[in-house]
Amino acid sequence: MIGAGSCSPEIYELAREVGREIGRRGHVLVCGGLGGVMEAACRGAKEVGGLTVGILPSGRVQDANPWVDIAIATGMGEARNVIIVHTSEGLIAVSGGWGTLSEIAIALKVGKPVVSLRSFSPDGSLIEAKEPQEAVRVLLELLGGR
Amino acid sequence: MIGAGSCSPEIYELAREVGREIGRRGHVLVCGGLGGVMEAACRGAKEVGGLTVGILPSGRVQDANPWVDIAIATGMGEARNVIIVHTSEGLIAVSGGWGTLSEIAIALKVGKPVVSLRSFSPDGSLIEAKEPQEAVRVLLELLGGR
Amino acid sequence: MIGAGSCSPEIYELAREVGREIGRRGHVLVCGGLGGVMEAACRGAKEVGGLTVGILPSGRVQDANPWVDIAIATGMGEARNVIIVHTSEGLIAVSGGWGTLSEIAIALKVGKPVVSLRSFSPDGSLIEAKEPQEAVRVLLELLGGR
Amino acid sequence: MIGAGSCSPEIYELAREVGREIGRRGHVLVCGGLGGVMEAACRGAKEVGGLTVGILPSGRVQDANPWVDIAIATGMGEARNVIIVHTSEGLIAVSGGWGTLSEIAIALKVGKPVVSLRSFSPDGSLIEAKEPQEAVRVLLELLGGR
Repeated sequence: MIGAGSCSPEIYELAREVGREIGRRGHVLVCGGLGGVMEAACRGAKEVGGLTVGILPSGRVQDANPWVDIAIATGMGEARNVIIVHTSEGLIAVSGGWGTLSEIAIALKVGKPVVSLRSFSPDGSLIEAKEPQEAVRVLLELLGGR
Repeated sequence: MIGAGSCSPEIYELAREVGREIGRRGHVLVCGGLGGVMEAACRGAKEVGGLTVGILPSGRVQDANPWVDIAIATGMGEARNVIIVHTSEGLIAVSGGWGTLSEIAIALKVGKPVVSLRSFSPDGSLIEAKEPQEAVRVLLELLGGR
Repeated sequence: MIGAGSCSPEIYELAREVGREIGRRGHVLVCGGLGGVMEAACRGAKEVGGLTVGILPSGRVQDANPWVDIAIATGMGEARNVIIVHTSEGLIAVSGGWGTLSEIAIALKVGKPVVSLRSFSPDGSLIEAKEPQEAVRVLLELLGGR
Repeated sequence: MIGAGSCSPEIYELAREVGREIGRRGHVLVCGGLGGVMEAACRGAKEVGGLTVGILPSGRVQDANPWVDIAIATGMGEARNVIIVHTSEGLIAVSGGWGTLSEIAIALKVGKPVVSLRSFSPDGSLIEAKEPQEAVRVLLELLGGR
C-alpha cells in the first residue's frame, strides 16, 4: 500500500477501507509507516485484526504511526521506497505524491503488479480500480488468486 | 540478534536458545533472515510462539529462512546491516564473522546496547554473557527492564 | 543526466550531445554509469575533456561504462537512483524507462529541477526541451545561471 | 582512506601525509567526505594536485569538507560506509572510531585489502603500517603493484 503522508479525509477513508480489506483477507499490510494514506491503511488493517509493517525513511522506530506493528527503521530516506517495493508482493497506490510515483516506477521496473486507486497511471500502464475492495480483489487476481 | 550465516552445531543450539528466550518473553526477534545463527534464532523463537523479522540483503523475500514471519527484502547487500541495527532496540551477537563485527560497530556508533555471546568485543567494549538466557536477561536490563 | 540503459541510435546521439554540452561548459556529468543514454552522455563529455561520475547499482566499479572517470559502486540496486538525485544539482532526462521515471519523481519530491528531453513529464510538471543544447541551457538558467 | 570525523592534531598530520602520498602517486582518494581524518586526507591530496571523492552520509553535497572535488550525497547515513568500501580498491584506516571499525569489517567481509595506521586490527587480521608512506606503499603492493 503506497500513498502520500498527508491526504484529504475522503482519501483517508478510502485508504482505511483498503487496509481493512487486506486485513480481512489475512494478508500482511506493508507501507511506509508514516501518516496520511499510510496511517489510514494501517489503522484499517488493525481494526480487523490484521498485521502491519511500516518501512520508515528515518532510523527511528518511534517515527512510525500508532497502527504499525513492525516498524523497520531504515535511516535511508527516500531509498526506503525501493525496500517497500521489494518487500511487497504487489502494490495498491491510493492517491499520492511524487514519492508514490517513484514507488510505482520502481515497481514497474522490477515487475511487481500495481493497482491504482485515484493515483497515477504513467503512460496508462496501471490497472485502475474504482473503489477499495475492487483494488484489493484485482491485485490478488493479478497475484494468482492468493 | 546478529551472527554469521553458517555456524557449528554448538553455536546453532546457543542461538536457538536465545531465540526461544526472546520469544518466551514476548519480544519480536529481528535478524538478517538468512541461515546459520539467524536461522537458529528464528527457529527457536517460532518454537515458543514468537514473532520473527528477517531483514535480507537481497531484493527477494524468498531468500528468507523458513522461520522468518516478516521478510524485508532490502536489495541493499551489506548495507542492510545498518537497518538491522536501527530497527532493533538492542543486539545480541552470537559468534559471527566480519558482517557481525560491522553490525556491532554500527550499534556502538549509534548507541544501541550490544551483548556478546562468544562473539567479538572490540576494545573490550561489550558486555559478555556466558549462556543464552543470561544474554537476553542482561540485554533487557540494559534496555530498562522491559 | 538520467535515461535508460539501452536506447535507439537517435536517442544515443541526443544524449551524447547533452554530454558534450555539459563538458564544454565545465560541469561535472553525473549519471548511473551504465550503457545506453548513460554511456552516450559520458562519451560526449569525455570527447570535450569533461569529467564524468557514474553511480552504479552494483558493488563493482568494473560495471561502469568506459567513459566513466569516477565510478561509485553502491551495491544498492535501484536505490542508487536516490543517490544520483541527491548528488546532482539538477537533472536532464533523455528518453528513458521506469528507472528514469523513478528518478524524475524523486527529484520532484526533493525539489531538484528536471528538464525533459523526449522523456516523461508526469502531470506536465517538467520543462521540456526540444534539443540537447537547449536542455542544458534551460537547466543552467533554472540553477541560477551557473 | 577511512577514519573518524574528529581527531588529534597528530593524527590529522598523519592522515594529511597519507593523502599527499596517494595524490603524488596519481591515485584517486576516496573517503567519507567529512572532517577530521577525512578532511586531512583530502587536504593532503589536493596539496599535491590529486583528485578527491567524498561519499557523504547526508543528502547534501554542501556537507563535504572544502577539499572534496566530487561529493556524493547518499542520504543513507551509516550505510554509506558500505559504498566507500565497494568504491575503493583498497583501504587505509587511520586511527578512527566505531564507524571506521564498521568499514574495516565490511572490507574484510567483501575481501578488500586494508592497511591499519594506528587503527583497529580485529583479531590481528590487518597489516599494520608505522607511518603514512609505508601504509600507501604496502597497500599498493597488496593491490598488485599498481
